Amino acid sequence: MQAARLHEYTDDMAHALSIDDVDRPEITRSDGVVVEVEGAGWCQTDNHIIEGMWTDYVEQTLPMTLGHENAGTVVETGEEVTLVEEGDKVICHPVMTCGKCRPCRLGEDMYCENLQFPGLTTDGGFAEELLTSERSVIKLPDGVDTTDIAPHADAGITAYHAVKKATRQLNPGDHAVVIGIGGLGHIGLQCLNAMSATTITAVDLKEEARDLAEELGAHHTIDPGSEDVADVVESLTDGTGAQQVIDFVGADQTTKLAPDIVAAGGDHHIVGYGGHVHEPSQSLVNGEFAYKGTLVGKYPELQELVALVDRGDVELRTSRYDLNDINTVAERLEHGEIEGRAVITP
Amino acid sequence: MQAARLHEYTDDMAHALSIDDVDRPEITRSDGVVVEVEGAGWCQTDNHIIEGMWTDYVEQTLPMTLGHENAGTVVETGEEVTLVEEGDKVICHPVMTCGKCRPCRLGEDMYCENLQFPGLTTDGGFAEELLTSERSVIKLPDGVDTTDIAPHADAGITAYHAVKKATRQLNPGDHAVVIGIGGLGHIGLQCLNAMSATTITAVDLKEEARDLAEELGAHHTIDPGSEDVADVVESLTDGTGAQQVIDFVGADQTTKLAPDIVAAGGDHHIVGYGGHVHEPSQSLVNGEFAYKGTLVGKYPELQELVALVDRGDVELRTSRYDLNDINTVAERLEHGEIEGRAVITP
Amino acid sequence: MQAARLHEYTDDMAHALSIDDVDRPEITRSDGVVVEVEGAGWCQTDNHIIEGMWTDYVEQTLPMTLGHENAGTVVETGEEVTLVEEGDKVICHPVMTCGKCRPCRLGEDMYCENLQFPGLTTDGGFAEELLTSERSVIKLPDGVDTTDIAPHADAGITAYHAVKKATRQLNPGDHAVVIGIGGLGHIGLQCLNAMSATTITAVDLKEEARDLAEELGAHHTIDPGSEDVADVVESLTDGTGAQQVIDFVGADQTTKLAPDIVAAGGDHHIVGYGGHVHEPSQSLVNGEFAYKGTLVGKYPELQELVALVDRGDVELRTSRYDLNDINTVAERLEHGEIEGRAVITP
Amino acid sequence: MQAARLHEYTDDMAHALSIDDVDRPEITRSDGVVVEVEGAGWCQTDNHIIEGMWTDYVEQTLPMTLGHENAGTVVETGEEVTLVEEGDKVICHPVMTCGKCRPCRLGEDMYCENLQFPGLTTDGGFAEELLTSERSVIKLPDGVDTTDIAPHADAGITAYHAVKKATRQLNPGDHAVVIGIGGLGHIGLQCLNAMSATTITAVDLKEEARDLAEELGAHHTIDPGSEDVADVVESLTDGTGAQQVIDFVGADQTTKLAPDIVAAGGDHHIVGYGGHVHEPSQSLVNGEFAYKGTLVGKYPELQELVALVDRGDVELRTSRYDLNDINTVAERLEHGEIEGRAVITP
Repeated sequence: MQAARLHEYTDDMAHALSIDDVDRPEITRSDGVVVEVEGAGWCQTDNHIIEGMWTDYVEQTLPMTLGHENAGTVVETGEEVTLVEEGDKVICHPVMTCGKCRPCRLGEDMYCENLQFPGLTTDGGFAEELLTSERSVIKLPDGVDTTDIAPHADAGITAYHAVKKATRQLNPGDHAVVIGIGGLGHIGLQCLNAMSATTITAVDLKEEARDLAEELGAHHTIDPGSEDVADVVESLTDGTGAQQVIDFVGADQTTKLAPDIVAAGGDHHIVGYGGHVHEPSQSLVNGEFAYKGTLVGKYPELQELVALVDRGDVELRTSRYDLNDINTVAERLEHGEIEGRAVITP
Repeated sequence: MQAARLHEYTDDMAHALSIDDVDRPEITRSDGVVVEVEGAGWCQTDNHIIEGMWTDYVEQTLPMTLGHENAGTVVETGEEVTLVEEGDKVICHPVMTCGKCRPCRLGEDMYCENLQFPGLTTDGGFAEELLTSERSVIKLPDGVDTTDIAPHADAGITAYHAVKKATRQLNPGDHAVVIGIGGLGHIGLQCLNAMSATTITAVDLKEEARDLAEELGAHHTIDPGSEDVADVVESLTDGTGAQQVIDFVGADQTTKLAPDIVAAGGDHHIVGYGGHVHEPSQSLVNGEFAYKGTLVGKYPELQELVALVDRGDVELRTSRYDLNDINTVAERLEHGEIEGRAVITP
Repeated sequence: MQAARLHEYTDDMAHALSIDDVDRPEITRSDGVVVEVEGAGWCQTDNHIIEGMWTDYVEQTLPMTLGHENAGTVVETGEEVTLVEEGDKVICHPVMTCGKCRPCRLGEDMYCENLQFPGLTTDGGFAEELLTSERSVIKLPDGVDTTDIAPHADAGITAYHAVKKATRQLNPGDHAVVIGIGGLGHIGLQCLNAMSATTITAVDLKEEARDLAEELGAHHTIDPGSEDVADVVESLTDGTGAQQVIDFVGADQTTKLAPDIVAAGGDHHIVGYGGHVHEPSQSLVNGEFAYKGTLVGKYPELQELVALVDRGDVELRTSRYDLNDINTVAERLEHGEIEGRAVITP
Repeated sequence: MQAARLHEYTDDMAHALSIDDVDRPEITRSDGVVVEVEGAGWCQTDNHIIEGMWTDYVEQTLPMTLGHENAGTVVETGEEVTLVEEGDKVICHPVMTCGKCRPCRLGEDMYCENLQFPGLTTDGGFAEELLTSERSVIKLPDGVDTTDIAPHADAGITAYHAVKKATRQLNPGDHAVVIGIGGLGHIGLQCLNAMSATTITAVDLKEEARDLAEELGAHHTIDPGSEDVADVVESLTDGTGAQQVIDFVGADQTTKLAPDIVAAGGDHHIVGYGGHVHEPSQSLVNGEFAYKGTLVGKYPELQELVALVDRGDVELRTSRYDLNDINTVAERLEHGEIEGRAVITP
């Protein structure tokens, strides 16, 4: 079958992946599941992987098929699989977990001690078929399109996961600031609106992004190019600051906003990882705020997000691309030229 | 009456404060309380105030009497005060709060919109008498010595506050790392031991501090001068890391330990503020850990700490100094020559 | 001034209260506030008070002016009041709290050790003027009508308080059951909808109530007169049960639904108190569910509810009555003949 | 092999189980584990099962081997098992869970939609060998005796689970009441002491039980035979009540204590199921307290309890019996003649 594979780390997105002919995956365990991929979202993280930015954090063996936002149809199952059967439409949680280690037993999938991450540590979904496991697949409700929903497998639950943590701390009358209304941010904003009655301020340099934010329910928008974010937030919150800030950018300029825009006792959630956190300890102490790193969401959170999508609370802007056009996608994303989310249809 | 006052910011601790003759405080509100100070703890923060390190964060008018860890005997009360009466032995929560703003109503004293902080923003307790308010005093159980308990008013509840947040996340079998076994750290360590069944590792450069840690219940100690903290923690936790780290130092070298010693989903609590937090956003994301600033504890937390002291769960190492020797204390602390906690007895 | 007062406990609602001529209230403390009452909601609890049903739980001295859901205009303030001034439109939290006891300091107003409850333990708002305190009043946003909002002072925050606890446990895809879509229930339902993305099933014997529920956002309704509630909930939840049940009736027939409709680990919140909880202990153990009593909400929760009202998320069905018609209201409510919420306009 | 089996429900404990010769268990799934039983605790629930008290709640097919508190040595493993191997000493979590349903994925083992409960719904551990699964076994630290620890598999984690929930709500200075210092209660008391700094009052009719409570760290004891529990708790808590009550009896007389002994906002945890909960709804509302059913603890909680045992924080009083004496144990427990916990050694 055809698969888009990374052979060596590079900054040249135009020639990042090559379309190889590889063997179809084979099930070797009782809980194996093979999915015919019908949608595989392209993610900023794919660019980061191509650049070698993850080599310090995980083990990767090249060549490797990328693609960690996958959905499709089950075509084969291991002998003890009961959750799904051939023909079922599924979305794939991005990681394969053992279900046996203490983190798994605590419900903390993402901390699994035996975690495999197709598209990051093993072969992913930019291919006709993907080998995953029973604990990674979620059967879709009728009427949900596998291609459209694919990006929720990673972009979606990452945004959802951060927002869910934030909403537990938010009350009516409180303020939340969402920084970056791109692929993740526009999902997070909708989740926040559906799951809380908080006042939402969206921050983005691009006018179209701010317009989209308003369309999706933001109560205020700020253009950091022309406005002082801290001043506007102070004014909007009567000097209190925002109880929760969700930073989908994570750049030096956005993380340094925290002491000025986060309310005492509040959180600055780091979702994007475009730069550094750099602050005097005294600043965190004085404002009693936290920088909270936030990872991909858990399997049950993907179930919850699918429920939100099924309710019509979250819509995703997607555009479709053929597997052969994959490097075009890599390049366009690098240049900020992708509207919404690009989905590969192998 | 006599009071030790700061007239200008300086790095010269030997001449930091001058002993002035000032008027006794007068009650002007129905909830005012005047306390004859019998113990006023000297705090690292006093050195920081003298150096001008708080001018960016709060408003200060000099000259100002320092001293924010106070205990003594009530000598006068406003006309609507019912909680205490003349002759009551009390410990003073370090801040005066309005009880009316939203943070106060949420029980979040320290975020009071009308907060006054004697010794930081108004006259403090390095004086014969201190003006405070009904909402700041806690009547002491019989048998508790006002001089001995004074440092708990700030050092104690700051340590307790951080530890309480940490214990809510700790289970038997989990690990906690306590960095810095000084004035605050040696209190925090005892609180942690009394309130949880976690395994505790204490980190300190000084041998006496590590010895004290073991005596107070630490299960392991690490000397960062001769050992690699990350390696030892990894080995002690079978590679998982510590679920909670409480950093009473907050220096560049201690905050940068976080990605290597905090377990996935865990917290690095910043209590001390000796330096900076500086990490790539990706590091916080990958480990899904948080840097949590932590401030002085709340009034009910001081009640809880007094209960711990009354149970005999927390002992404090103190040495007593006359008001006239106050600059000696400032100097000795600057040079790390104070064992335990110095208490001024005006 | 005129006030509607209870002189003796009775079941005869037609002659429950008498309109007396009484002195205007006088401020005796620095934090006193007198409000000219412009709306005072009539509550089921008023009927219960008249019947003597609260004598086992609180101390009451008759005669007493009833009325605990009050809003109006500030006409006089004690000398240390800063939160409001003459002419301010306010809603009154139903209780007066000391702000000094441990529960108050924890933010738990309703557990205040020195609590006074106008209309239940002291004179209430079915009168031209009401004496309350600074810690009980919340300034209203422009454009909010004092008569319309009055019932939120008790009915509203009681419903909000229960719903807020429930929403902290609810995720998208979960189910909540709301029992009783009357005065409190129709507010609770709207709060639930605004603050969560849960699937809501409303249970009520009356067709109009079920119609109202659907109009206000319920996804399903059940008529317990003709349907088996447990069967329908089982079917709607694929056998899991509802994660949270909010019971605004609290009768024997509704509390006994819990083991059959509450999901494992879930809660049956008791808001109404029309009857008993009666279950084998084994039943609670086997389903690991809880019966959670739920009281009036806290002062900050009333702030949050006012924010919800200001956002347009909660609308209240009210009808207005003159002070002289107060016994008519008592009688009609007793017979279930009041649509929405009756508000007295003294 | 020999196994003690229930053939029909009976009240005649002297002839409750018969020792049958049955086939050794066979592994049929990749995750199967066979354990040679070295300790199998006898539990009050075994008496309840024999009496048929669980037939309303679970499906049982007789004859069935009882025994749900098991520990021993692994003798055979399914082909995909990696957590343990032949020869490993293990304790068995009492239930077998699928690891795939939503409750399992949330970490809520006990709500598993495909749960099997050896000794309650399938063959248990009163036999030479027990068939269980990889997700049910926990490898023991060196030096922990399999016979001694067996009762922790159910009695222990049930007590631990209830106590853990309670400790999350307890602060220094708060009070906890433990009702019933028997098999579960004496474990719960020790966990409470190790995991919190709360003041503990133990309630038991038997003098030896109260003596044991004091020995294990209770600060106060109450004899409900000669003292009024509510009066004593009121006096011990200055009228506040106990923030948390853990009721290991669950009889009518103990559950009805709640409104008088639980502090406002507190919980009465129902662990034992000797009777009913019966209270007016108004009582739960007025005190804003909860009756919380509490089930067996989760797998990670058994890991935590093993850690507590390994620290030396919890000791268990056990007596050993041969498989052939099993009905003697049943009878003695029925008559309250077993000290501590009886363990069968098949």
